[in-house]
Amino acid sequence: MDILSENNRLAERNRGYFEAKQVLALNLVSSPGSGKTTILEKTILSMVATHKIFVIEGDQQTARDAERIEKSGAPAIQINTGSGCHLDARMIHQALQKMEVASKAILFIENVGNLVCPAMFDLGEEKRVVVISVTEGDDKPLKYPYMFQTSNLCIINKIDLLPYVDFSVETVQNNARQLNPSLEFILMSARTGEGMEEWYKWLGEKIVTRDA
Amino acid sequence: MDILSENNRLAERNRGYFEAKQVLALNLVSSPGSGKTTILEKTILSMVATHKIFVIEGDQQTARDAERIEKSGAPAIQINTGSGCHLDARMIHQALQKMEVASKAILFIENVGNLVCPAMFDLGEEKRVVVISVTEGDDKPLKYPYMFQTSNLCIINKIDLLPYVDFSVETVQNNARQLNPSLEFILMSARTGEGMEEWYKWLGEKIVTRDA
Repeated sequence: MDILSENNRLAERNRGYFEAKQVLALNLVSSPGSGKTTILEKTILSMVATHKIFVIEGDQQTARDAERIEKSGAPAIQINTGSGCHLDARMIHQALQKMEVASKAILFIENVGNLVCPAMFDLGEEKRVVVISVTEGDDKPLKYPYMFQTSNLCIINKIDLLPYVDFSVETVQNNARQLNPSLEFILMSARTGEGMEEWYKWLGEKIVTRDA
Repeated sequence: MDILSENNRLAERNRGYFEAKQVLALNLVSSPGSGKTTILEKTILSMVATHKIFVIEGDQQTARDAERIEKSGAPAIQINTGSGCHLDARMIHQALQKMEVASKAILFIENVGNLVCPAMFDLGEEKRVVVISVTEGDDKPLKYPYMFQTSNLCIINKIDLLPYVDFSVETVQNNARQLNPSLEFILMSARTGEGMEEWYKWLGEKIVTRDA
């Protein structure tokens, strides 16, 4: 697989860049419409006074997400993948040349909404965060196993809609743990704010090691 | 693009096969978890007594969807794409050799849940149906334009959840019509049954031409 080995090489280069600058780089992946951008907006509003935050946005078309993010107060760069279905390490490398990410910053990379292809492309991130909303059904980990196997944290979003849908949190967790026993979970409603504190705590723990 | 031209050639072969048998082949595409399988289950239960229905199911992993479909009373064949992110014309051609589709039947092809890659791969279908659920956000057509440009019908599903989410049916319709002025729409809740009659009517009109 030539494309993948080339990508993996560039991903290591990005990883070295982040390491040198002590940047916490997170790759956020999900289906379309799971709420990644809303989670980022709320996170930036809450943390931007005390943390340096930068965002790279990936979408097939439009700069809507980067515009939403910049309104929240963080510098953002939009990558349009056109007919492409995922971000790759080269796109991140090029974005890093356009946007100077400060040292000890948090860099959120919001991938194209797609549970399949982004799983195959390492961007050089430190942690991969998969977001699933409760409206998507609790069989998603079994049907899209690579994404759950390669993620470190699973945010189960839109839990305010649990009363109205057939979705078992326990089932999705069991299904995902079968594939990846070390996967962590946070239950969240970015809309109501539930679970956001736990997410900020998770982020804070990852940053703390940089200041030690 | 070698892969695409090879695919387009095989798609035409499938199209000829369907034409010869007067099969109405529909390619159902969407994000993961938009409700395609539930729509098919309800459709089969309602129509199987009066129509010949066959289903090809695409997923990265598991035979769950084909099992759900067969319980509803239609023959189904499951294709697992592994690391692949879409069905292609060759997979459909091979499935047609394993499952004898009756003449004048309806063949539903449920694609892998992915708003990006399946847009590029013609399967030889007569109509493409994109399903979007109201929990996914009304900006999806702008962010995933190819899928909406290449579809004939857009089912807006899970409308029973409209009171609980920020989603404007009018906005999604306007956004999609900008890309594809001839796109038709059906508002639906497969869960409550709302809109199903309109969908059966749409299907019926497509079949009627075969009996003329």
